Amino acid sequence: MAPPKTDRAAFEAVFPSLRQDLLDHAKKYNLPDNAMQWFEQALNVNVPGGKLNRGLSCPDTGLALLKKPLTDEQFKHLSTLGWLTELLQAFFLVSDDIMDSSITRRGQPCWYRQPGVGLIAINDAFMLESGIYVILKKHFRSHPAYVDLIELFHETTWQTELGQLCDLITAPEDHVDLDNFSMEKYMFIVTYKTAYYSFYLPVALALLYLQLATPENLQQAHDILIPLGQYFQVQDDYLDAYGDPAVIGKIGTDIQDNKCSWIVNQALQRCSEEQRKVLDAAYGRKDNKLEEQVKVIFKELDLEKVYQDYEEKIVGELRGKIAAIDEAEGLKKEVFEAFLAKIYKRSK
Amino acid sequence: MAPPKTDRAAFEAVFPSLRQDLLDHAKKYNLPDNAMQWFEQALNVNVPGGKLNRGLSCPDTGLALLKKPLTDEQFKHLSTLGWLTELLQAFFLVSDDIMDSSITRRGQPCWYRQPGVGLIAINDAFMLESGIYVILKKHFRSHPAYVDLIELFHETTWQTELGQLCDLITAPEDHVDLDNFSMEKYMFIVTYKTAYYSFYLPVALALLYLQLATPENLQQAHDILIPLGQYFQVQDDYLDAYGDPAVIGKIGTDIQDNKCSWIVNQALQRCSEEQRKVLDAAYGRKDNKLEEQVKVIFKELDLEKVYQDYEEKIVGELRGKIAAIDEAEGLKKEVFEAFLAKIYKRSK
Repeated sequence: MAPPKTDRAAFEAVFPSLRQDLLDHAKKYNLPDNAMQWFEQALNVNVPGGKLNRGLSCPDTGLALLKKPLTDEQFKHLSTLGWLTELLQAFFLVSDDIMDSSITRRGQPCWYRQPGVGLIAINDAFMLESGIYVILKKHFRSHPAYVDLIELFHETTWQTELGQLCDLITAPEDHVDLDNFSMEKYMFIVTYKTAYYSFYLPVALALLYLQLATPENLQQAHDILIPLGQYFQVQDDYLDAYGDPAVIGKIGTDIQDNKCSWIVNQALQRCSEEQRKVLDAAYGRKDNKLEEQVKVIFKELDLEKVYQDYEEKIVGELRGKIAAIDEAEGLKKEVFEAFLAKIYKRSK
Repeated sequence: MAPPKTDRAAFEAVFPSLRQDLLDHAKKYNLPDNAMQWFEQALNVNVPGGKLNRGLSCPDTGLALLKKPLTDEQFKHLSTLGWLTELLQAFFLVSDDIMDSSITRRGQPCWYRQPGVGLIAINDAFMLESGIYVILKKHFRSHPAYVDLIELFHETTWQTELGQLCDLITAPEDHVDLDNFSMEKYMFIVTYKTAYYSFYLPVALALLYLQLATPENLQQAHDILIPLGQYFQVQDDYLDAYGDPAVIGKIGTDIQDNKCSWIVNQALQRCSEEQRKVLDAAYGRKDNKLEEQVKVIFKELDLEKVYQDYEEKIVGELRGKIAAIDEAEGLKKEVFEAFLAKIYKRSK
């Protein structure tokens, strides 16, 4: 039986009150009107409007753990924690887009490219991050896991930044050296830059909130969600190269941006000396024709098939791990089944 | 009698162990070697090497509160908290320099302008901020004020970001409109962007650490340190225009950067219609000759004298407030006397 799912509209309806909490807190300090309007706009453009996979995962996890409908209070609280994962994601996306010189995000120009914004977006990103702790304090100050919730956000933020650092210096946009790349570095980047905040964080938040965060439950969740997150990012890299820009809402730039992606690492493991020469000369250049040459090699190596084989293998392994979960301390297999169902064969 | 002061070399000697704490925590996650080296370099370039006014204020405040030498443990802990204020400052400076297109910092190129760094500096700034909470957790997890220490850093960070937002949108580099400026907005920016983190934070940290942070003590500290911080920033603006670049370690860019500084707000309050026309045409332009025209008007209005009069007045008021402090709950006048002595008539 399919696990129950959070009503998306009900989840979205929680956001305006959280936005108001943040604006009220700024207003308390007499932030001038032009700055109030700016902050509200930064929130509206960057926080809602995404796929909300991370945010919805918090109440979804709560539903799967309790196996019954959430009370109004539980729904409000778990949705609030879900929106905090979306705030964290907004903080990362606004700043990553600047660092990566990205052009579009969710089908519109990246925030830093919107009129009059520019590098002020760096400070806007900071404010999105700070908003997490303003809201945590307002709504969870008396929760027994308050300190654990704060520490989890801190640790996850730090992990993501380590992943981003490794990504940025392994694949600088202005210096291409494919010898820098390796599947090992790739897995570090993917694990720290994506898997912790996108997969482990929302589930750990729900476990903490429901006071089910025993060491054993957190460890089991970790040991499934980190490989699941790795799979998600491999898929993201695949969609960057093979997805439909109209569906995923952005134009893939990994090849021109010299990204250490799963696709190019697969190509490096399989290419001939001739193909390697082309990759060395064409990868990571801001040139559409050179990008096309790289794509031709990806086709020659049939990386679509390589990806599809990978997907079937990893999904089989994940299903095995989920089946083996020990539910003695209140963890539920359904938590992970819901996750896997959201990701498997997604097109955006 | 002059209050006792922290030995600068002893304070500086605490830094390497905190740097090691951060590197150890990154190493625990198997951060690849090239990223470890990068992070160490980012710490070395951006955290030590400043005036350390904020950092030294924590142990200095401890000394003034206790009126006796610190134990080794108190010195280590208060110096650690001091270094956390320096980490917070490093986070702000690295990112502000990018947003302001600054050129030099502490006599060398800004971090984002150092070879190979560029916008990766944004993520480096994030990691400096995250380091605060890694160290707090390691050294203060069992302190009774642990949650208050975390919340104080959060709140101060948020306040500084509000000030920075107001500053950035009031004085955008690409659109000069001196009607945007006002002494009122100036005071908001100065209070939130500088006074809280530079003055209130280190004293409040020492009060929390020594368990003297009663509401009355925090309020009294606030009501002196915020005007003190305003004075400090007014002075900073004065030094940007009139200080010696060789002494202050940076070239003043406020005029060309269209900054809403104390100096230009004073000029706007005093200038003739003729002078106003020149300011409108010349302020905030990336042009050395136009900058010179602005400086001529500053001279004509004798803003050096205006500043000196301001300084004597505010220092007189601060001395009056310090004399009126209620020491019943363990606060000491010496805390503030030490601060004022560091700032009064500084040249850098």
